[in-house]
Amino acid sequence: MKVIVDFCLIPIGVGVSVSKYIAECEKILSDAGLKTHLHAYGTNIEGEWEDVFTAIKRCHERVHEMGAPRISSTIKLGTRTDRDQTMEDKIKSVQEKLQGI
Amino acid sequence: MKVIVDFCLIPIGVGVSVSKYIAECEKILSDAGLKTHLHAYGTNIEGEWEDVFTAIKRCHERVHEMGAPRISSTIKLGTRTDRDQTMEDKIKSVQEKLQGI
Amino acid sequence: MKVIVDFCLIPIGVGVSVSKYIAECEKILSDAGLKTHLHAYGTNIEGEWEDVFTAIKRCHERVHEMGAPRISSTIKLGTRTDRDQTMEDKIKSVQEKLQGI
Amino acid sequence: MKVIVDFCLIPIGVGVSVSKYIAECEKILSDAGLKTHLHAYGTNIEGEWEDVFTAIKRCHERVHEMGAPRISSTIKLGTRTDRDQTMEDKIKSVQEKLQGI
Repeated sequence: MKVIVDFCLIPIGVGVSVSKYIAECEKILSDAGLKTHLHAYGTNIEGEWEDVFTAIKRCHERVHEMGAPRISSTIKLGTRTDRDQTMEDKIKSVQEKLQGI
Repeated sequence: MKVIVDFCLIPIGVGVSVSKYIAECEKILSDAGLKTHLHAYGTNIEGEWEDVFTAIKRCHERVHEMGAPRISSTIKLGTRTDRDQTMEDKIKSVQEKLQGI
Repeated sequence: MKVIVDFCLIPIGVGVSVSKYIAECEKILSDAGLKTHLHAYGTNIEGEWEDVFTAIKRCHERVHEMGAPRISSTIKLGTRTDRDQTMEDKIKSVQEKLQGI
Repeated sequence: MKVIVDFCLIPIGVGVSVSKYIAECEKILSDAGLKTHLHAYGTNIEGEWEDVFTAIKRCHERVHEMGAPRISSTIKLGTRTDRDQTMEDKIKSVQEKLQGI
């Protein structure tokens, strides 16, 4: 089952600067061969369910290894059976409608 | 790795009433032996990472089987390595602090 | 416009224990006269849009005043125009369907 | 108080294609003079608290006017008092760390 995910991980108990943990997660997702897009409040991920959640679990494990005692992540997760849709399709679909407004 | 999760699934394209889909998910989570608490905007789940995400995947599969062509879920996901903590612990900890305010 | 909200606030940069900040937010929501239900990964809130978001803003302000330099909150937010629905209605509706499975 | 928000609105009860509703929200956010970035699972927004939430409320009102009887939105919301930070700063900070890995 293919999924489009938005993943936002927050390490807790390591101070106010969290970008080095997020960078490490970006590397894990990229090394897993997943299609990603980093934005200002998370990362879009496209891939097979198992691949995506294996990588997300690896992110939690790695951020704990880096010293974060606690992590809270927010994940949005979309699946559909009516048709195949990529992350680019979703954005393009909105942008096309915008031109008609 | 133990996780405490908040899971909220929204079937799209099946009209305005979604409770029968949520009920089916409750049953899947319960049949999986997971500890759960249904609230007004999702379900708290406590368990091992693999068990929890296997059950959440099963929820998506089942809701698609029931006829929903599209699903969007929101998941909050907490892990910690500093100590063991249950869902009840989290609530109790806040309630104790509340008494002191 | 009436809203049912799920609100989860995470103070960042104040260490691993966050319950005293959450307790303070519970007090703010309660003092605002809002109907709330604390669960293991956030708080359900029911009320008028303005009242709810004024209280949520007050939570951010207060948690900053308490010393948290950074806050990340996750909010789920439901509105409907087809009928009036309370937090209890939502839970009851799922529980009734569960009996029939 | 300045906020960086991630906003994802889901109209319920209007079928499987939701992009025209999202496009309308993009227009509302843009007309409000807010800085935005549309991604595959929501929209990043940067602005003053009042401006951002007034626009988000307007999105809910407008999508109801367009015929959606029910809406569920997910909002992530960040504030910080230690320093000023833009959406671009957040992304750049992660990308710089990525180069060092």
